[in-house]
Amino acid sequence: MATSRDRDARGKALEAVAGNGLIDRRALLGRGMVLAGAMSAGVGSAAAGAEPLADDPWSLEVGESTPPYQVPSKFEAKVARTLSNPNNEPRNSHARTPHHLLAGTTTPNGLHFTINHGGVPTIDPDKHRLVIHGLVKQPLEFTLEALSRYPMTSRVSFIECGGNSAPMFSPEAMQENVQAIHGLVSCAEWTGVMLSTLLEETGIDPRAKWFVAEGADSPHLSRSVPVKKALDDAMIALYQNGERLMPGNGYPMRLLLPGYEGNMNVKFLRRIKLVEQPAMSVYEARTYSQILPNGKAYQFYFLQEVKSFITSPSLGATLKGPGLYEISGIAYSGTGRIEKVMVSADGGQSWAQAALQEPVLSKAFTRFRMPWRWNGGPATLQSRAWDEAGNVQPTRAEFVAARGELTKPPPVLGFPNQHYNSITSWGVASNGEVKHVYA
Amino acid sequence: MATSRDRDARGKALEAVAGNGLIDRRALLGRGMVLAGAMSAGVGSAAAGAEPLADDPWSLEVGESTPPYQVPSKFEAKVARTLSNPNNEPRNSHARTPHHLLAGTTTPNGLHFTINHGGVPTIDPDKHRLVIHGLVKQPLEFTLEALSRYPMTSRVSFIECGGNSAPMFSPEAMQENVQAIHGLVSCAEWTGVMLSTLLEETGIDPRAKWFVAEGADSPHLSRSVPVKKALDDAMIALYQNGERLMPGNGYPMRLLLPGYEGNMNVKFLRRIKLVEQPAMSVYEARTYSQILPNGKAYQFYFLQEVKSFITSPSLGATLKGPGLYEISGIAYSGTGRIEKVMVSADGGQSWAQAALQEPVLSKAFTRFRMPWRWNGGPATLQSRAWDEAGNVQPTRAEFVAARGELTKPPPVLGFPNQHYNSITSWGVASNGEVKHVYA
Repeated sequence: MATSRDRDARGKALEAVAGNGLIDRRALLGRGMVLAGAMSAGVGSAAAGAEPLADDPWSLEVGESTPPYQVPSKFEAKVARTLSNPNNEPRNSHARTPHHLLAGTTTPNGLHFTINHGGVPTIDPDKHRLVIHGLVKQPLEFTLEALSRYPMTSRVSFIECGGNSAPMFSPEAMQENVQAIHGLVSCAEWTGVMLSTLLEETGIDPRAKWFVAEGADSPHLSRSVPVKKALDDAMIALYQNGERLMPGNGYPMRLLLPGYEGNMNVKFLRRIKLVEQPAMSVYEARTYSQILPNGKAYQFYFLQEVKSFITSPSLGATLKGPGLYEISGIAYSGTGRIEKVMVSADGGQSWAQAALQEPVLSKAFTRFRMPWRWNGGPATLQSRAWDEAGNVQPTRAEFVAARGELTKPPPVLGFPNQHYNSITSWGVASNGEVKHVYA
Repeated sequence: MATSRDRDARGKALEAVAGNGLIDRRALLGRGMVLAGAMSAGVGSAAAGAEPLADDPWSLEVGESTPPYQVPSKFEAKVARTLSNPNNEPRNSHARTPHHLLAGTTTPNGLHFTINHGGVPTIDPDKHRLVIHGLVKQPLEFTLEALSRYPMTSRVSFIECGGNSAPMFSPEAMQENVQAIHGLVSCAEWTGVMLSTLLEETGIDPRAKWFVAEGADSPHLSRSVPVKKALDDAMIALYQNGERLMPGNGYPMRLLLPGYEGNMNVKFLRRIKLVEQPAMSVYEARTYSQILPNGKAYQFYFLQEVKSFITSPSLGATLKGPGLYEISGIAYSGTGRIEKVMVSADGGQSWAQAALQEPVLSKAFTRFRMPWRWNGGPATLQSRAWDEAGNVQPTRAEFVAARGELTKPPPVLGFPNQHYNSITSWGVASNGEVKHVYA
């Protein structure tokens, strides 16, 4: 299959790179290659080219006034985060990113995922303080204004909840869309002061091996982090995609630990305490621990491992008929850069290498794309990512063997629901409907 | 001056790299280098490290509920676009980006600049069509859904109005801030279909040398563009920073011509007509033409040339006393990548090379940063950028000699107000106040 040639409606050759319609991207992009044949299923319609064009109503009236802060069109109301706790009841609140409706590599600030354990605090930035103390030579307190005078850095980084993709621990493929399954990961450009810069100010007592980061939200969410990470790439983030952090993302400041699980990137950050031993806070000892099939748990499982998923086409889409489509998705790794993404249209029997959108940045979303000519028959679409350290997304069989899946009824002491990073499969039926399948 | 050494309050050496306090960034970032001395003007305050910390009110109450689409904190209400036509009177409407309050390289969608000539149209994306016709082999019409099946590309690109920085044609330095002077430029990640892909569909008649792009807004803004640009990097942009275009930025689709003046990136795009000669629309023949000192005008001055300006500190800021600050700003070029940015604190007598935030992308914002120890005396802060093609920002004297400045009264037929790209100077007084100066 991988070397066979397909032909479009005009008889032009389309180089197949794997089974069930995956096409060489270079064939499509060659100058002079006419796609109209391959795309002939009504994608571009013949136009008479009348002049002047008939005016639609909006071309005949004065438009709306310009707002100081613009938001999406009313026609995009469906492009919204789904909420687990819309009435703000006394429990945590999830807001999931609608990846099936987005494109590119940036998550716009309005749609960045959030999880908060006591609602979204309303913090006066002029009164908020960050204290760094414990095993330091000189404890220091910083206002937002003081932090703004330090040398800053920007970096693009994804943040992912350790519990993202938890529905995939179900023994049957749940019929949920990308947003419901993978909506607890987002990616933004963060700007702030490196934590190492502030620790040069305070000095570090050599006994300090960990630091405890604590938020100013009412649950005072706190996590323990090795000092090594503080001296590597930890940042006190003040800006998100250019503007101050969103309220739900930690305004006015948060800890950014690129590649580490979401809740460790402590929001509303008010304290960093250097200590000898981890604090064993409830968030690290219980809420975000990973239960293994043998009943034991991983302690301090920080890293979000290499992962990818196809966002288009995905559950909720219905293909309009045979012809050319673009398979597109997101890949990322807490370890570093994405090295390659392979895509299959036949449930893993054959694979082809997807194009990666440049620039490919470390610990950031990488958009992958693969042209696909759907022949109208059943197809199973999968993606599998490798990172620059050679880590590869496990197959589902490998993953379940190592990490378990949800049994019925769930075990008393907890259940496996953290750090799912195996392959996602979308099944396309002959009628064009897309379902979630295990393959 | 450039090799002298300064000393901080603890007697540590700070390597000067140019006059009036510019410091080597590497000196600050060396492990074990204690900044507290240099920063001693109350930047980090000694903290007692009480435990538990005293709770602010927001740490004692349940926070707000989570919205489907989040917006900035109410404390950030000042971080807004300034409007030239808030009552939507029958003329054009400008909304300027508040660069003095932003950081990093991304302009968040809420704050991307917009100029519209007939208000912001409310376009139903399901009814909008793009027609490509004229000197093509097969005229075609595309729905948004049809476009979504083509291979897509993402790229980060700035867009700048040809009239950005027009206040700097004034013979005296106007006391306006960065937003008022330079707020008509922004930068985002755009995702869409390359125009060349669609032209492969329609085919191109060899007689076609230009195309006319036309918007669906009520003025039907139209511009003529060489076909060469269509085959180079022109894109039909559908997404902005991951989500669908903002209404003011051309929803549901716009032309993106990386590096070319803003209005050519036609918004609400409904038509691309291939032609032999430019259409000489009012927008290219009058509104956006550049008048020269000899009374003639540049015809078809497309490129936004290499430029930079300091965003912090800048007019409106008041320095709180001597000590360390970070000088930070934005550089970009319509030609390609920024090669280097030089910064001066003494009005151009001496210069030092600023750090550029990686990744440095072609035709995109590049954030530059330079540490500065203010001694409390007068200072004049400037930046000057070079691009990879060797183009350099002109001095003000060079620029005025070539392009003229505004005379009083303005000449009858128009006045020079386009494509200003010379150096911006901020004068810091001993009381810490920052003014706009020509130097």
